[in-house]
Amino acid sequence: MLEPDFEKGNGLIPAIVQDHKTGDVLMLAYMNREAWLKTLETEKATYWSRSRNSLWVKGETSGHYQVVKEITIDCDADTILLKVQQTGAACHTGYRSCFYRKITAGSFEIVGERLFNPEDVYK
Amino acid sequence: MLEPDFEKGNGLIPAIVQDHKTGDVLMLAYMNREAWLKTLETEKATYWSRSRNSLWVKGETSGHYQVVKEITIDCDADTILLKVQQTGAACHTGYRSCFYRKITAGSFEIVGERLFNPEDVYK
Repeated sequence: MLEPDFEKGNGLIPAIVQDHKTGDVLMLAYMNREAWLKTLETEKATYWSRSRNSLWVKGETSGHYQVVKEITIDCDADTILLKVQQTGAACHTGYRSCFYRKITAGSFEIVGERLFNPEDVYK
Repeated sequence: MLEPDFEKGNGLIPAIVQDHKTGDVLMLAYMNREAWLKTLETEKATYWSRSRNSLWVKGETSGHYQVVKEITIDCDADTILLKVQQTGAACHTGYRSCFYRKITAGSFEIVGERLFNPEDVYK
């Protein structure tokens, strides 16, 4: 098994999450070894929450699970790319992708699609 | 200007790099504030090399520049997504994308396309 290099990032690797059909980048999250193994085992994306300091099965609160369709690993094995089937929206703000703001000269504009109201989902 | 949150990652933010036409994820690199401002100014992707500890204009050695077509920033402003026009290949190993290895049960397989021989490029 090709094991990601967890040492470089003090036990964490970044995981880029991409919609397996549209190719849209949905979010970036972090995994420790436990989250990595759980993702492989369950085929549901599982991360390490840096803010909550705990294992985080994506969708366990919102129902917006990510079924992992493909995993690739980068040249120096310190980043992984998950292609997923996203239920609902990836972003806790209700947008389909966390990257819903485009940087333009001096400011930003909203380019994403909002699929839910967070107040309805996170109670 | 919406400024990325450089504090969270000790002065660095991850930048996901995606081909602006195909949607393929090409690589992940890191930026400090200087690299970020230089990228905005020059429209050529510029990173902070963690291994060399120096500013890194992508392509300055290989000629494989990345012209930035779009920048989006994520919900908590600690990750950016660059859509780029990639000259040649993104990966120093010669593959078009750094994510050229697919994880399969117990092993990996090469799924990427190799576009150059590193020995010819990095002398």
